[in-house]
Amino acid sequence: MNVPADRVAIIGLGMIGGSLARDLSERGVQVLGFDQDVETLAAACRAGVVSRVLDEDAANDPPEIVVLAVPVTAAAAVMRRFGWACRQAALVTDVGSTKVAVQVIAEQEGLMRTFVGAHPLAGDHRSGWPASRAGRFAAARVYLCAGEATDRSAIARAASFWSALGAVPEFTSAQVHDNLLAWSSHLPQFVSCALATALCEAGVHRSALGPGGRDATRLAGSSPDVWTAIAEENQVPLTRALEAVEASLRAIRAAVQARDSEGVRAYLEISQQWFEAAPSDSKSSN
Amino acid sequence: MNVPADRVAIIGLGMIGGSLARDLSERGVQVLGFDQDVETLAAACRAGVVSRVLDEDAANDPPEIVVLAVPVTAAAAVMRRFGWACRQAALVTDVGSTKVAVQVIAEQEGLMRTFVGAHPLAGDHRSGWPASRAGRFAAARVYLCAGEATDRSAIARAASFWSALGAVPEFTSAQVHDNLLAWSSHLPQFVSCALATALCEAGVHRSALGPGGRDATRLAGSSPDVWTAIAEENQVPLTRALEAVEASLRAIRAAVQARDSEGVRAYLEISQQWFEAAPSDSKSSN
Repeated sequence: MNVPADRVAIIGLGMIGGSLARDLSERGVQVLGFDQDVETLAAACRAGVVSRVLDEDAANDPPEIVVLAVPVTAAAAVMRRFGWACRQAALVTDVGSTKVAVQVIAEQEGLMRTFVGAHPLAGDHRSGWPASRAGRFAAARVYLCAGEATDRSAIARAASFWSALGAVPEFTSAQVHDNLLAWSSHLPQFVSCALATALCEAGVHRSALGPGGRDATRLAGSSPDVWTAIAEENQVPLTRALEAVEASLRAIRAAVQARDSEGVRAYLEISQQWFEAAPSDSKSSN
Repeated sequence: MNVPADRVAIIGLGMIGGSLARDLSERGVQVLGFDQDVETLAAACRAGVVSRVLDEDAANDPPEIVVLAVPVTAAAAVMRRFGWACRQAALVTDVGSTKVAVQVIAEQEGLMRTFVGAHPLAGDHRSGWPASRAGRFAAARVYLCAGEATDRSAIARAASFWSALGAVPEFTSAQVHDNLLAWSSHLPQFVSCALATALCEAGVHRSALGPGGRDATRLAGSSPDVWTAIAEENQVPLTRALEAVEASLRAIRAAVQARDSEGVRAYLEISQQWFEAAPSDSKSSN
């Protein structure tokens, strides 16, 4: 499948944006790149991945697709700074971990006709241009979130774009996406963080943990920048999910404290049954 | 190093007891075995691992070491049933995950002169005789807990016994052991269980989780029997540890809910620093 564009702008050449740029240039697409970090931009140009810098000199021959690969907190400023490119593009998309907040910004900037938010599940613990690599999106799920005002042609182009890079598109609404991810991704992150914080305060080092405890706290090592932003963007569903774990933890602790063995066993059994159930119709995310 | 005994009794031929029996018989030690499950006992005899059944016919030629490889809830009954063997042995030991409760039982049975509790960190998710294997204790830490009334010769024999199987003994008090394990092992287990319970109630399947979420919930698959018993045996320190996670989770949720980004970031930073700190003097356990 071919990339549905001859020219694509990638704004933000970090781990995800840089990987996109590599995949596109390998496929013969002209990549117009930008990064606020001059060294990063220069490195991407030297590598032959970015063929020209995205600036107003390109306005006469604008990119058909604009990808915002920046934190959601920077999205509004980027849409304004590169408004000339966004307004001329047939598709404006992004790569962020939450989808409601960026869609609200696209609405405010009057871009919803061509905006389709995207969340490729292809991250790892590293970040920045040095962590970019070709092929990162092969077989990765990518959630695509269009609004009610989005053109059908932009929606189709978004699906073709990600499919051409080997990703597997799944359409959902921004609200459904953010609610699902609050539970499946953001909740385990903050529960790991709460466990790590308590262990830290008790003076128990991670090296004192066995394999199970180390697994349970692996997410504690994630980037504070990334997760502070996600907590803010997804505040409502994440708060609800955290409240649910608070309630289950309180109930389990009460059963332990009361030496209520049948109560303790009931929670362990729910948990084990949940662990062992693997319905074939369920979805994978990160 | 030789096993400091010619005859050893193993009561309970499950994953740990069976592995001990295999290691000992490979080293030429006569293993007197018992299991309440007749099939298990027969299998261990057929395998040539148990050379005779532990019964009163052996009273004239009693084992020098008796190992209780049964749940702590069965320890008192076993010490009474095999009192003739326990009273004649130079060392009575066990393999349980908590150490205060079994020591109290040994005191009640008048066995503290020869009792040294042991907790080898050599388990996995499987159980029973079929999960037993030779070499299970090679390089595994084993906590050894003697009481104030324990003979020095029993303490020395316990260290020699485990060292002969390749384990690395570490002496500590039963109280210190149980408090450390409440944090490093039992707490991650019950936090995973609380997370799994909340996800189950929200209808989110484990297959919807990414690698991070799957790691954070791996312990949810552990045995309800084993962990119900541990929660009861280690109720006081485990309750305290669970309360600490409740408090940190409540504080993190409050910061998320209040959109207090600096507060959220502070918890994520504590957590990341804890994750990255790897002091060389710390201990590993499971």
